[in-house]
Amino acid sequence: MNQQQIEIICIGNELLIGKTLNTNANWMARRATSLGVVVKRITVVGDDVNEIASITRDALQRKPRFILTTGGLGPTFDDKTLEGIAKALNRRLEVNKKALKMVREKYEAYAKAGRIETVELTPPRVKMATLPERTEPLPNPVGTAPGVTMEVNSTFIVALPGVPSEMEAIFEESVAPLLKKEAGKFVFFETSTYADGIMESTLAPLVDRVMRDNPYVYIKSHPRGAEKKPHLEIHFSTTTKDSKTAKDLIGKAIIQLSDLIEKNGGKVKTKKA
Amino acid sequence: MNQQQIEIICIGNELLIGKTLNTNANWMARRATSLGVVVKRITVVGDDVNEIASITRDALQRKPRFILTTGGLGPTFDDKTLEGIAKALNRRLEVNKKALKMVREKYEAYAKAGRIETVELTPPRVKMATLPERTEPLPNPVGTAPGVTMEVNSTFIVALPGVPSEMEAIFEESVAPLLKKEAGKFVFFETSTYADGIMESTLAPLVDRVMRDNPYVYIKSHPRGAEKKPHLEIHFSTTTKDSKTAKDLIGKAIIQLSDLIEKNGGKVKTKKA
Repeated sequence: MNQQQIEIICIGNELLIGKTLNTNANWMARRATSLGVVVKRITVVGDDVNEIASITRDALQRKPRFILTTGGLGPTFDDKTLEGIAKALNRRLEVNKKALKMVREKYEAYAKAGRIETVELTPPRVKMATLPERTEPLPNPVGTAPGVTMEVNSTFIVALPGVPSEMEAIFEESVAPLLKKEAGKFVFFETSTYADGIMESTLAPLVDRVMRDNPYVYIKSHPRGAEKKPHLEIHFSTTTKDSKTAKDLIGKAIIQLSDLIEKNGGKVKTKKA
Repeated sequence: MNQQQIEIICIGNELLIGKTLNTNANWMARRATSLGVVVKRITVVGDDVNEIASITRDALQRKPRFILTTGGLGPTFDDKTLEGIAKALNRRLEVNKKALKMVREKYEAYAKAGRIETVELTPPRVKMATLPERTEPLPNPVGTAPGVTMEVNSTFIVALPGVPSEMEAIFEESVAPLLKKEAGKFVFFETSTYADGIMESTLAPLVDRVMRDNPYVYIKSHPRGAEKKPHLEIHFSTTTKDSKTAKDLIGKAIIQLSDLIEKNGGKVKTKKA
């Protein structure tokens, strides 16, 4: 059985103009990986219906088990994610009763707390409950706009807000259990060692050899030093069916590579310099 | 004349497992935007020849003026960017004489500084000078692997290393002047104001109205407050042919929107809370 695959789609002009650092993609990638699924691709597009529809269609054609989107679910004109997904799927947008109830209860609570004057469901508020046909809203524990989920052929599409605290809260409550269940028994394990006194071009054939001898371990070197002082992080990772096997596999690779590095004049540490 | 478009492709498993925050994409997006081109899409793929070839082909079909890649140019087995680009273009890989000279001179300098024992051009070192046919190497002022550039139909493809200091140095030296030239006279201008005491759903129709009245200004609200205290950043941006026009356009939109926000019970500040 192969690992289930996931694509992440981040929506927002602020990412494309470099105003906002994409911490959401990083957070989702790390969480999804730790839950045992493989992140195959991350794509950032702007607040544009055609761009969102196009990337959704392209991602669906690659048949990942999950497509997770973040951003573009709010009340403003440029929150266009659901319109884009609806277009990609040839579905109509409609006011979803469950979603409308979620939104209404939020505004009632805000009014009770004295934060707003009116609980009136104005068009921008109804917009947050206007979903593609045949989809399910996901409760938003910390904000107003619900998440949205649907299954299209063999792919779950899950749309989450772009505000990090809201994205993370819906992810933990509604998405993580689903990923975990679909991932089955796969466990991701990673660790790093650090090498001084060896250049990456000298390390390269040593890594090749250790990876040939340890086919389930992925090893990647990252130059971390300043120009004058080579310092390499060496990152080991594996995905297996239990954590003892993972640790054994990685331990064996670390010992073999450390030995080779020291024979080539380098020094290995288990902590950062 | 429309603005020239750019796509950014980031290559590296470390981005897909969430080990590394994609600061390179953010840096490149900000710099490219400030130079007057439009970043249309950012894609992250893993260290996989087929994935790199596939995204390169897809991006070329969208006919942006530039495709910028980062990552995967180093000496290790998993540095596969040039192999992927060569595959996408049906070109052979060959040792590029200019690139080999650049690499050789780097190792000679390292040896002179006492950092390495041998200047021998081992296979991992020659790999960094092995480029697709009919491409040009770009000097790397701070590291070893040269950047690579080529023109394919109406698109410049530029491949840069993933180490941030190297990517940024080659960008500033060789890419920024090219972007600037191709961008023509377009200038990007942005600023933010901050609003308290108004919810995003109340702000939304006000933004719609101001954007209708100011068609060249893009306005986007970002919730920044804690759950109990709404605080919104309102980001204004425009791309025009000179900075005076940009400032006038944005100033007019800020005055109109601030006025509407205050009429709706909100308070506007020009600094963060």
